[in-house]
Amino acid sequence: MRRCLELAQRARGQTSPNPMVGAVVVKEGRVVGEGFHPRPGAPHAEVFALQAAGPEAAGATLYVNLEPCSHFGRTPPCADALIAAGVARVVAGMIDPNPKVAGRGLAKLRAAGIAVTVGVEEAACQALNEAFVYSITHQKPLGILKYAMTLDGKIATPTGHSTWVTSPASRQVVHQLRAGCDAVVVGGNTVRRDNPLLTSHGQGHNPRRVVMSRRLDLPVEAQLWQTDVAPTTVFTEIGANPVIQRRLQERGVEVLELPRLTPAVVMANLHQRGALSVLWECGGTLAAQAIADGSIQKVLAFIAPKIIGGTAAFSPVGELGLTKMTEAIPLKQVCWRAIGEDLLIEGYLTQTTNTP
Amino acid sequence: MRRCLELAQRARGQTSPNPMVGAVVVKEGRVVGEGFHPRPGAPHAEVFALQAAGPEAAGATLYVNLEPCSHFGRTPPCADALIAAGVARVVAGMIDPNPKVAGRGLAKLRAAGIAVTVGVEEAACQALNEAFVYSITHQKPLGILKYAMTLDGKIATPTGHSTWVTSPASRQVVHQLRAGCDAVVVGGNTVRRDNPLLTSHGQGHNPRRVVMSRRLDLPVEAQLWQTDVAPTTVFTEIGANPVIQRRLQERGVEVLELPRLTPAVVMANLHQRGALSVLWECGGTLAAQAIADGSIQKVLAFIAPKIIGGTAAFSPVGELGLTKMTEAIPLKQVCWRAIGEDLLIEGYLTQTTNTP
Repeated sequence: MRRCLELAQRARGQTSPNPMVGAVVVKEGRVVGEGFHPRPGAPHAEVFALQAAGPEAAGATLYVNLEPCSHFGRTPPCADALIAAGVARVVAGMIDPNPKVAGRGLAKLRAAGIAVTVGVEEAACQALNEAFVYSITHQKPLGILKYAMTLDGKIATPTGHSTWVTSPASRQVVHQLRAGCDAVVVGGNTVRRDNPLLTSHGQGHNPRRVVMSRRLDLPVEAQLWQTDVAPTTVFTEIGANPVIQRRLQERGVEVLELPRLTPAVVMANLHQRGALSVLWECGGTLAAQAIADGSIQKVLAFIAPKIIGGTAAFSPVGELGLTKMTEAIPLKQVCWRAIGEDLLIEGYLTQTTNTP
Repeated sequence: MRRCLELAQRARGQTSPNPMVGAVVVKEGRVVGEGFHPRPGAPHAEVFALQAAGPEAAGATLYVNLEPCSHFGRTPPCADALIAAGVARVVAGMIDPNPKVAGRGLAKLRAAGIAVTVGVEEAACQALNEAFVYSITHQKPLGILKYAMTLDGKIATPTGHSTWVTSPASRQVVHQLRAGCDAVVVGGNTVRRDNPLLTSHGQGHNPRRVVMSRRLDLPVEAQLWQTDVAPTTVFTEIGANPVIQRRLQERGVEVLELPRLTPAVVMANLHQRGALSVLWECGGTLAAQAIADGSIQKVLAFIAPKIIGGTAAFSPVGELGLTKMTEAIPLKQVCWRAIGEDLLIEGYLTQTTNTP
């Protein structure tokens, strides 16, 4: 199963709206076939593994981190392929939460006389596809808020200077994080102040870069308008700054006008386009709006061991309207790890998520 | 040596201006005497250990975490007592940084034909007495800034509400921390807003509670004025609010008027009274002043895994006048540990300290 997870991750960031899946065919203690799902529309992991195993698949055990599908999507059901190949046993990491599957794949296998085991390394399987699970359950992408702050809680100096809060090692982890996400969101202030590129810097897939700007008061030149590197979408409100709209469109930037620009509406739009996970790398004002309207489920806080001070220095989360410390939103499943000299604290917002 | 450190810590918070010292006499593999320095003016650890060993001390080895003294202070030199007892060997954790000793104790022992080893478990010995080492080297107390903040960097809500940021487990660690310090400092705002008690809550010695208030605009009733629990000193500027001064003095609070109230002047005063370590549990404004004038060497940040938000929420360190992130003060020797659900990050400010 660990090998399935390894294989599955080879396509990290490239499978959406599908999950990451890896499969291994084992016969008499030998691996006779392996495969993973590389991208939407391509065959599923089980099909590649069965193809690699060939006639050896008959009587073999297939390991897969997610229940094989039972329905016709862009490809035929994997359960049928497993039955046809004469597989004797299937070991699955977890049930597919997709309501079109949800146990039907395993039921079909069992009905065909195949021995089925489910729930092996389940926590790791759930964690790998947490965005898929969240997205299919809640019909919106998993929202991840990432910020980098000093030990005294600032993401920038009072003048807005923020390069760099964290070490190169932490920034590389952020690049890897982007490679695993479908979109990265910032607000207009971040474009104006930091002019970020928001790519994975060679660490893998580049996410769609998304800018939220109500008035479209954006610079004509910005790294995000380099759409040959990665696609960029700017969300704005209807009728905002037609001159900039045209300039951006000329650069290949997609501009979408909405009646009212909110994080939740942007998340709904990205969900329609198949995004499972959206990384929020915005400032405190937009972060607070995204938390308040349920667009953030997971928080990744990079903490650099330094003190910058500043009464007017920028803080990672703006106004939430909470006046008592007892009203603070607790995080659950909190964990941390050292990254170079920095610390990364991860957790899930309890009010808005039911991820594992 | 580990046993010496255990013994030494029994008097944590009670030895200032002296260091914490424990001693063990070992003869033929058996412990024949133990002792620790309980309080200033009392005999040193070596004397208690020798007394316990009695005639067995002759030909024995004495372990002690700090070099035995060579000078007449409030008690005669320990080196002389060791020589008189006929000890064969002395194993010391570290050289005494006190310029009155500084190797002379060990030299005296060697001159008397006693075998001397120094530097055993030295890092642990240095850490135990870091405040003594810092204080005697810099002629001021070790300043420790402690704060408790949310994962989004706030120590209180925009309305000033801060009970509680951290878990009971973290607050108990703070009580233990106070038991090991000679004084705890807050500003007038903390008295007005939080009305804290600032004791060790039964975890050991109570530090002197210190309030810095320029205008002495303090409440007539406050937990800090309960001087039967622990002594309280209020530092103010000359001529401030004579009515409150008299009211405080009636409650047994010491009021000291200074020409100009700064953290460094308060630290100098506390040093004169023998304080080795001073815990700053103040708000961001005073914390920034204390950092800026070199009164803080060590930072202890408790981080609670919760989000409170708030543009006007209070931050642990106020204005330091730094405008570029590259100017941030880095911490060194950073370490962290979980305390209940919270995280405690410790480190030393590189600009102002040379502690180990």
